[in-house]
Amino acid sequence: MSGLILHEYAPSGNCYKIRLIAAHLGIPLERRGYDILRGETRTPAFLSEVSANGRIPVLQAGDDYLPESGAACVYLAYGSALIPHDRFDHADMLRWMFWEQYNHEPNIATLRFWRAFIGEANLSEAQRAALPAKEAAGHDALALMDAHLARTDWFAAGRFTLADIALYAYTHVAGEGGFDLSRYPAVEAWLARVAALPRHVAMGA
Amino acid sequence: MSGLILHEYAPSGNCYKIRLIAAHLGIPLERRGYDILRGETRTPAFLSEVSANGRIPVLQAGDDYLPESGAACVYLAYGSALIPHDRFDHADMLRWMFWEQYNHEPNIATLRFWRAFIGEANLSEAQRAALPAKEAAGHDALALMDAHLARTDWFAAGRFTLADIALYAYTHVAGEGGFDLSRYPAVEAWLARVAALPRHVAMGA
Repeated sequence: MSGLILHEYAPSGNCYKIRLIAAHLGIPLERRGYDILRGETRTPAFLSEVSANGRIPVLQAGDDYLPESGAACVYLAYGSALIPHDRFDHADMLRWMFWEQYNHEPNIATLRFWRAFIGEANLSEAQRAALPAKEAAGHDALALMDAHLARTDWFAAGRFTLADIALYAYTHVAGEGGFDLSRYPAVEAWLARVAALPRHVAMGA
Repeated sequence: MSGLILHEYAPSGNCYKIRLIAAHLGIPLERRGYDILRGETRTPAFLSEVSANGRIPVLQAGDDYLPESGAACVYLAYGSALIPHDRFDHADMLRWMFWEQYNHEPNIATLRFWRAFIGEANLSEAQRAALPAKEAAGHDALALMDAHLARTDWFAAGRFTLADIALYAYTHVAGEGGFDLSRYPAVEAWLARVAALPRHVAMGA
């Protein structure tokens, strides 16, 4: 595969997922950065050329554009060992990827963004009102992961898959959102297992 | 495929997606209902036996349980014409399914649930504070769908796929959340196309 361009904001965990898959599979990616704090993904040019949804990441393959990190992950890893072929295992991998986007990212990634990037003093009234619920839901998500990982080394199919990559991205920086990971020992052990894999790259790489 | 059990709350769009796929593919489903308004998915029995996440739908295949509607959709339709095989088309279908769960469902389905099931008078302070943002984001989602459907009859791969089913479920009842669909003529035409397909079943069926 050649000619792949990742439209990204480097500190975003959703973008990091795609770089991590590319590293594991040895796929070269050209990277184009946008500063989301300056609204660079909401310009008319970005909205008309890259994605009408105004969000990163977007994976560009030739003239085709793929928004949504989960879709870009599957595109990149299609046919590789990172995606199980067994019908149940395949769906179970997707189950964790959907769960990450619904139950994990809107709480853990959002609190990281609000606290470490925007700053708590700059939040709107509605954002401030949402803090307690997002904190509780983030801890619920980490507790659910911890209970799962107390029984198995990887999220799906008994081996390292896209599900682990999708969940690693924002979990390993959950501390930046105010989450104390030492409360979740099985999660900490799994984070160490992922980071110790041969082709692993750090978020800042 | 036999022995499939859908753990559901019938008025939930996420559960309807699975019944709609089963109808299109002629797959029999046993249905088990839980009243989420009475907390029936948060009981110790549900949490330990069906899903630790305390949400429906969960698709049970023998002794295996699949939470997350998107994962259950892919499991059910695996290898069928509802899932494109082409690498890009396959990812593009998932793109719309992930987008639905992130940008559409938390706004359009949540406002329907708050207004038509819980009742606006019974909302918490934090829920009330979130109303304007969810209303705006819901309209953004419908406008994005409308612009896409002005150019193409189906969401992905140029034909009816899981992406259409995932988006149909809550879009066709968006009015119950206070969204006026007559503002989105291409969406209304697409809803009619989906409902006219031979094996279509209604949400209340």
